[in-house]
Amino acid sequence: MSELTHRRPDGAVHMVDVGGKPATRRVARAEATLRTRADVVELLAAGRLPKGEAIGVARVAGIMAAKQTSTLVPLCHPIPISSVEVDFVVGADDVTVTAEVSTVGGTGVEMEAITAATVAAISLYDMVKAVDRLAEIDGVRLLSKSGGKSGDWVRP
Amino acid sequence: MSELTHRRPDGAVHMVDVGGKPATRRVARAEATLRTRADVVELLAAGRLPKGEAIGVARVAGIMAAKQTSTLVPLCHPIPISSVEVDFVVGADDVTVTAEVSTVGGTGVEMEAITAATVAAISLYDMVKAVDRLAEIDGVRLLSKSGGKSGDWVRP
Amino acid sequence: MSELTHRRPDGAVHMVDVGGKPATRRVARAEATLRTRADVVELLAAGRLPKGEAIGVARVAGIMAAKQTSTLVPLCHPIPISSVEVDFVVGADDVTVTAEVSTVGGTGVEMEAITAATVAAISLYDMVKAVDRLAEIDGVRLLSKSGGKSGDWVRP
Amino acid sequence: MSELTHRRPDGAVHMVDVGGKPATRRVARAEATLRTRADVVELLAAGRLPKGEAIGVARVAGIMAAKQTSTLVPLCHPIPISSVEVDFVVGADDVTVTAEVSTVGGTGVEMEAITAATVAAISLYDMVKAVDRLAEIDGVRLLSKSGGKSGDWVRP
Amino acid sequence: MSELTHRRPDGAVHMVDVGGKPATRRVARAEATLRTRADVVELLAAGRLPKGEAIGVARVAGIMAAKQTSTLVPLCHPIPISSVEVDFVVGADDVTVTAEVSTVGGTGVEMEAITAATVAAISLYDMVKAVDRLAEIDGVRLLSKSGGKSGDWVRP
Amino acid sequence: MSELTHRRPDGAVHMVDVGGKPATRRVARAEATLRTRADVVELLAAGRLPKGEAIGVARVAGIMAAKQTSTLVPLCHPIPISSVEVDFVVGADDVTVTAEVSTVGGTGVEMEAITAATVAAISLYDMVKAVDRLAEIDGVRLLSKSGGKSGDWVRP
Repeated sequence: MSELTHRRPDGAVHMVDVGGKPATRRVARAEATLRTRADVVELLAAGRLPKGEAIGVARVAGIMAAKQTSTLVPLCHPIPISSVEVDFVVGADDVTVTAEVSTVGGTGVEMEAITAATVAAISLYDMVKAVDRLAEIDGVRLLSKSGGKSGDWVRP
Repeated sequence: MSELTHRRPDGAVHMVDVGGKPATRRVARAEATLRTRADVVELLAAGRLPKGEAIGVARVAGIMAAKQTSTLVPLCHPIPISSVEVDFVVGADDVTVTAEVSTVGGTGVEMEAITAATVAAISLYDMVKAVDRLAEIDGVRLLSKSGGKSGDWVRP
Repeated sequence: MSELTHRRPDGAVHMVDVGGKPATRRVARAEATLRTRADVVELLAAGRLPKGEAIGVARVAGIMAAKQTSTLVPLCHPIPISSVEVDFVVGADDVTVTAEVSTVGGTGVEMEAITAATVAAISLYDMVKAVDRLAEIDGVRLLSKSGGKSGDWVRP
Repeated sequence: MSELTHRRPDGAVHMVDVGGKPATRRVARAEATLRTRADVVELLAAGRLPKGEAIGVARVAGIMAAKQTSTLVPLCHPIPISSVEVDFVVGADDVTVTAEVSTVGGTGVEMEAITAATVAAISLYDMVKAVDRLAEIDGVRLLSKSGGKSGDWVRP
Repeated sequence: MSELTHRRPDGAVHMVDVGGKPATRRVARAEATLRTRADVVELLAAGRLPKGEAIGVARVAGIMAAKQTSTLVPLCHPIPISSVEVDFVVGADDVTVTAEVSTVGGTGVEMEAITAATVAAISLYDMVKAVDRLAEIDGVRLLSKSGGKSGDWVRP
Repeated sequence: MSELTHRRPDGAVHMVDVGGKPATRRVARAEATLRTRADVVELLAAGRLPKGEAIGVARVAGIMAAKQTSTLVPLCHPIPISSVEVDFVVGADDVTVTAEVSTVGGTGVEMEAITAATVAAISLYDMVKAVDRLAEIDGVRLLSKSGGKSGDWVRP
């Protein structure tokens, strides 16, 4: 079985060299789900007018977090992000955040999408934790990626 | 039912005022779980000697992320953190990260513990994603908190 | 006439010592105004439902910028901010941002309020610059401050 | 009339996709003016020898702020800045800061120039606020831009 | 012999708990020396008028770095710094940077002083490296500390 | 003799323009040495199992610091780093850190290598300072560079 890419033969970690990889367009999508109570979801999403604001705060948090990925995740490369979209699907007692990030470069943006979705979910959690300490974040995962040597992939 | 604490009567958000709260010792514990395959867990934890390094990288990532919480989560207060501990329990096909953060101040450190545990798990994910794209992070949740007006709480 | 507080007798700058000052509650309010065209203001504020989002993005930007003040302004002290409020008054062809910041500490939060109001205005500018390159930001100024040795002050 | 570029059809914001744009050289110039009193301007600029230092601090603040633009302005792209120049024109009772930023890339540097000029002016304000609380920052505006699809533009 | 303070009995690191320590005034001084050639020192320091600027840039870099210590050094606590002074002694073929940092809190500022002096020296190095690639930084060390349980200490 | 590259004819500093330089592969290596006592080096490196952790923390600190170079050193360009390696040679009473950084771009990575090595050494210092206040960091220097107009260079 293959080795962890960040581990060198001597067992130490490094930031792997992507300098020789061609710059191609790469896109990644990831999601994270906040699980809470139905009445809390209503507080987050309800009201129509004041609405947006809680979701909007989480969206900005996710977009800004994508840009901080390489300062949070030790072995990630700094990446010239081309775009970030953060979307929310409000369920009965959960909110699913989807983040799509793209770049033109030598390495993928999976971690940027994961980070954007997760920090958006954490920001929602921050706003509901006073009314639901039992809220959880689940299902942080990659949905798809395209571009790069390993090619396109969609979660089965 | 109570309102979201970050929402003002006009529907806009704000960073709530904690200036009048007495400075007391506050502790929060949170966890996050990376779910992957048994052979991948072995790669992360095995070898005894080179070991540590993957877990160690994630530990440092979690500790440093705790200190970045207020730059990631929009409505969090900057907090003079007193301590951070990040621990790992390696299961058959998962790794559970626990983070404990403490402060002496006017507001709690739940978000710091959540952020530390999550970023540590994301950093583990970063190191395994090339060998397991299906890996997921689940169960991001608060385990306990103590201190402050709302008192002690342990997840039931 | 008095000297600049950040300049030492030898002409060099320093971060002045606030270690001996008692920790008192301090509040500062500042504003900044984006001047643009009436039709652009309508784009920013209109629609009722999607609304909020442009204003909401600027509000989050202002709140988060308050927390970055000491990393932007070289001689500012890092400050444990207690609260931040960012508000918008939409005029015929301008939007005025007001920021109020408070702390309990040994130094004031004037720069935090100035930075929050300005970055919120810059974020609005970012969203309108493609439709109005002539937009300007004016009237960045302190409105009031309270607390500390120099006492309360309101802009005449 | 055209829509705000950062707003999607559904009213939410996003970081617009610049991945398909060709990398061309782009330059932007912006200015910001600190208005204060004549005696304060003298304090900032006088002395010849110790001089420089107050202006110099503001220059460094502006250069460093250009590099922080995408962490301050939520929808800005991270940009590989090629150069930053920050200049000061000392008037009778004001100081005008001009910032010029360039890049080779797929999106412009207007926001970087605006941010550099503004943070330099805010840093000057920080150094004079103890002797002139009435000081203001005015005239934050784009002076010119070149490169990119929309072509060259000079403020009329 | 005593153990490393950041190492727990199980061999893992943590950010040690300073929550129980009383808040006292603490001061630390550190230095770092840039060794280069006499003609390069002259370039850095000469000219009288343009002078200051190179030294001034390094001073600002040192002051700002003190505030970033806890984001650079993994196990450092975020600290409410009370003051920072960065000074330069220009020798025949070297420049020695001294940094003094103070706080009122539960943990010392040795690392902040070390970081300020070092980053100021690195910034000088950055400005001379094109004319002297052989330049070195030596003698990064603590000069003195006061306050806290371990009391006052001056380098013998 | 040539002038300092960051100084303009008028004596002010700027971030020099690298926009016209071709993007080539560039590599830089630098080192920094922590000098302490033999028994302290043993604490850092000993134990086999718990080992790694102190060295591992310093390695992560160095890798992450490389990515922060342009926010620490005022006139450095933000650089899309391709790789970072941080290595340690444990001597009798010292530990030498070597950092190698690469990029594909228009400007070199000398400062990134210097910063990575230095911050790794500072992080080691942080972990030993409680047991050896006399520890020092010496020999911060460039070892080699390749790529770019000035060509390859190895420290004589």
